[in-house]
Amino acid sequence: MTKLHSWCVDMELSLPSLEDNTADWDRIQVALKNRFDVSRSIGHISLYRSLPSIVREAEYKVRCSLFRDRASYYITGVAPASQSSFLGVAVDLGTTRYVVEIVDLVSRASIVQGNYANPQGKIGPDILSRIHHASTQEGLEELRTLIIEDLNCRITQLCEKEGLEKKNIVNVAVAGNTAMTHLFLGIEPRWIIREPYIPPLNKLDLMLARDIGLDVAPGARLFMFPNVGSYFGGDLFAGILYCGMHLQEEISLFVDVGTNAEVVLGNKDWLIACAGAAGPALEGGVSKIGKQASPGVIDRVKFDPEKGSFVWSTIGGLPPVGICGSGIIDLAAELFRNGLLDFRGKFVVSRAPELFVERDGIIHLILVRAEESGTGKDLLISQPEIDSLIRSKAAMFTILETLAETVGVSLSEISRFYVGGTFGNFIDPRSAITIGMLPDLSLDKFVPLGNSSLKGAREFLCRPALFEELLDVERKITYIELNVNQEFMNKFSAAKFLPHTDRSKFPSLSSLTF
Amino acid sequence: MTKLHSWCVDMELSLPSLEDNTADWDRIQVALKNRFDVSRSIGHISLYRSLPSIVREAEYKVRCSLFRDRASYYITGVAPASQSSFLGVAVDLGTTRYVVEIVDLVSRASIVQGNYANPQGKIGPDILSRIHHASTQEGLEELRTLIIEDLNCRITQLCEKEGLEKKNIVNVAVAGNTAMTHLFLGIEPRWIIREPYIPPLNKLDLMLARDIGLDVAPGARLFMFPNVGSYFGGDLFAGILYCGMHLQEEISLFVDVGTNAEVVLGNKDWLIACAGAAGPALEGGVSKIGKQASPGVIDRVKFDPEKGSFVWSTIGGLPPVGICGSGIIDLAAELFRNGLLDFRGKFVVSRAPELFVERDGIIHLILVRAEESGTGKDLLISQPEIDSLIRSKAAMFTILETLAETVGVSLSEISRFYVGGTFGNFIDPRSAITIGMLPDLSLDKFVPLGNSSLKGAREFLCRPALFEELLDVERKITYIELNVNQEFMNKFSAAKFLPHTDRSKFPSLSSLTF
Repeated sequence: MTKLHSWCVDMELSLPSLEDNTADWDRIQVALKNRFDVSRSIGHISLYRSLPSIVREAEYKVRCSLFRDRASYYITGVAPASQSSFLGVAVDLGTTRYVVEIVDLVSRASIVQGNYANPQGKIGPDILSRIHHASTQEGLEELRTLIIEDLNCRITQLCEKEGLEKKNIVNVAVAGNTAMTHLFLGIEPRWIIREPYIPPLNKLDLMLARDIGLDVAPGARLFMFPNVGSYFGGDLFAGILYCGMHLQEEISLFVDVGTNAEVVLGNKDWLIACAGAAGPALEGGVSKIGKQASPGVIDRVKFDPEKGSFVWSTIGGLPPVGICGSGIIDLAAELFRNGLLDFRGKFVVSRAPELFVERDGIIHLILVRAEESGTGKDLLISQPEIDSLIRSKAAMFTILETLAETVGVSLSEISRFYVGGTFGNFIDPRSAITIGMLPDLSLDKFVPLGNSSLKGAREFLCRPALFEELLDVERKITYIELNVNQEFMNKFSAAKFLPHTDRSKFPSLSSLTF
Repeated sequence: MTKLHSWCVDMELSLPSLEDNTADWDRIQVALKNRFDVSRSIGHISLYRSLPSIVREAEYKVRCSLFRDRASYYITGVAPASQSSFLGVAVDLGTTRYVVEIVDLVSRASIVQGNYANPQGKIGPDILSRIHHASTQEGLEELRTLIIEDLNCRITQLCEKEGLEKKNIVNVAVAGNTAMTHLFLGIEPRWIIREPYIPPLNKLDLMLARDIGLDVAPGARLFMFPNVGSYFGGDLFAGILYCGMHLQEEISLFVDVGTNAEVVLGNKDWLIACAGAAGPALEGGVSKIGKQASPGVIDRVKFDPEKGSFVWSTIGGLPPVGICGSGIIDLAAELFRNGLLDFRGKFVVSRAPELFVERDGIIHLILVRAEESGTGKDLLISQPEIDSLIRSKAAMFTILETLAETVGVSLSEISRFYVGGTFGNFIDPRSAITIGMLPDLSLDKFVPLGNSSLKGAREFLCRPALFEELLDVERKITYIELNVNQEFMNKFSAAKFLPHTDRSKFPSLSSLTF
């Protein structure tokens, strides 16, 4: 018995004879059973219709694409064995942007990738506004249609660019947060945000891609990564599978940093997950000049104490027009290291008065002067904006600390700290530790994963064995609601200092003088 | 753990709380698992979409309709528990006519039935002509569309008549012969009639009814009874399940009489099936006045030797316009009993010259004189037409004899002789034995089943346990190709006499003098 190494298998079926009148489709079943112990696989009428001529043209040497549901395997495509192409599409379905990757299911190689704005953004930039819009049937349908049509159009573009055929796309895997998953499928999401926060669906069956409106092969199936809860969606699930923390002896922490901080702690024996609001600061969403990473946005900041000025890098090397989350974290860390921010997170204007300016009675730091900026204006950060960042970083740290305490693990015991999400890729762990947002671990423990949601979805298209791991993670993972009680609030208050009221939690910062 | 007694179940789901954030759909899964050991059931996007509002309106008291595939259960409908109606549709998909029955899945009562001409008949009256027509894509699609649209229209009519809602139809079960099954689904049937006679599909997965074009509930699933071989289709399979021969200790024979004679022999331990051409005579399809059973058609014939004339009954009591298969069998038996047909099956004109007339040099029997007929003309049966009946009855007897010999069973050992098909209902076993078409068993062994295909399909909608029986029959049944060798031809020749060359095979006829 061979293990299924890819979702595509080539098989020589037994030849028909008067002595063996097994039906064509049953011959495929028999071959799958004998070779791969796939006991019964479900097809689709579109496959049945094309089957008789395909098997005969191919002289019963066929290539099948399979996909798996919890209980069953599905046959998603049947073609002559020689030179038939079967494609998979992996989607990271983000609230703001989404990423599409086309994979060759035979060679398991990535072919092409595209990154697009989620067109639902024009209805509302954030999840809440979209959920509200979806409270009417028309609004829900509008949101659903926006993303489905855009995705169809992007898939077409990518296929045309690479000379691929959409009709060869047989397996689709989509990873999104709980709300995006529901909006993608056209399912009322309002219950997600209402107490007691029950999503309509967590574990989804494999669906016919055409039923969802995807313009791919008629027998293609869609896999949606399961949600763990209303605030812990399939994107995180894909991330866990990708980082592999569920296979390791040592305890790891996996954090997806965004407006919500989604956190998983655990190892091969247990996994505990929670999510909490961190506020928009970490995504560059609170300051006037805060922006999502895009060309011209500052992603790295240093302070040059000799010159008394900032050195920054921007995405694409363009003149700066704003600053993203990783840039703000760098900035706060640099200000703190250089005594321009005190341990309460307040500007120390007296240290370098020329860097500050008052506007409408509020102190602002001049990050980029008008003559150097891409906007023709000074790029300013205000004290309230810094305050907001401090609250976000304190929330993040408190969530991590609380989760670890819940299971009796000290943060210092963590052997790997996976930082997921595109944004996580850009955070400088040194800066994040300096402001006390992430725990003071040795830097080599931090593993930036990049777009772990997309990577998990892609792996799912390339490695059938991942399905067993998915079931395993589903069984192991416990989702806890963070209990925002007095103790949590006390921890949060202590974490609102730089790096923390309890300096012993950040030994590596002992060289810093304050 | 309760057994599933119907495809509809009412369940109180656990109520959502902050302590239990199980998703709505997962609550249904949990309830099904806990109460019925249905470990995982597959849904459909249309159900997911309506789920959140239904469960909340119904305060988590829901009625679900289920249906089963080999490997899995499917949820086909979800509604509030109180007063929700779920309907099933059973279809006997015959080549000439088809029958539709609507069943209440909750009470398991039959609601309404309709019997219609198969609209594919206008393309070709028989299977062969339709298979030829289906050899082009357009022809296949034309045939498919004809039956699907007609069925949709009939279902609509039946629903309107009874005040039912089509959208409540969630489970559909269709039983047809192998070719009709393929044409219904739009699958190339040509391979069925070409050596080595491999059908594209025997065991069909449960399909989404909408994918097949049926205008029923969006989550409704279609079950097609499996074929055993190219000439032994789902209609026979449904008949086996209905008569229950697969559960009995004693050996039974099940025959569906038509153009093909389909025969199953066996008991609870084994089942052996075969099919052979019997010719159209038994369906009233060879004589000029031969007709399928319909108003005005003679279904019973007696000869009154006193008066020297025929006494007949017609369907609906109308003036006679033709004669159906059971009438022809009666007629031949009466002619034989009264010395008007000799043991070679030739008219004995000398016995009653007034009953015969010569037309175009061929001897005809006057069955009904013009003044009594519904057509204004004499109803005549010619010698070649009688010859054709003799060949058909000989074929039938030879098939039965050969099958029984293959497994070493004597026909006299048979404890029950089920006669399936609507036609089987009308055959007088006494007449069929007299002409040597059926074996000479005691009359109480003959069990006419009526439309066993429809009844099997209806039972399937009413008794979930039948699915296990279906799997059991599938495992047990062996299909054998009848080997038309010299021995078969010898047997056939011997059976072409009335009742048979070997009179000892028909001891009950010993009182007849010839």
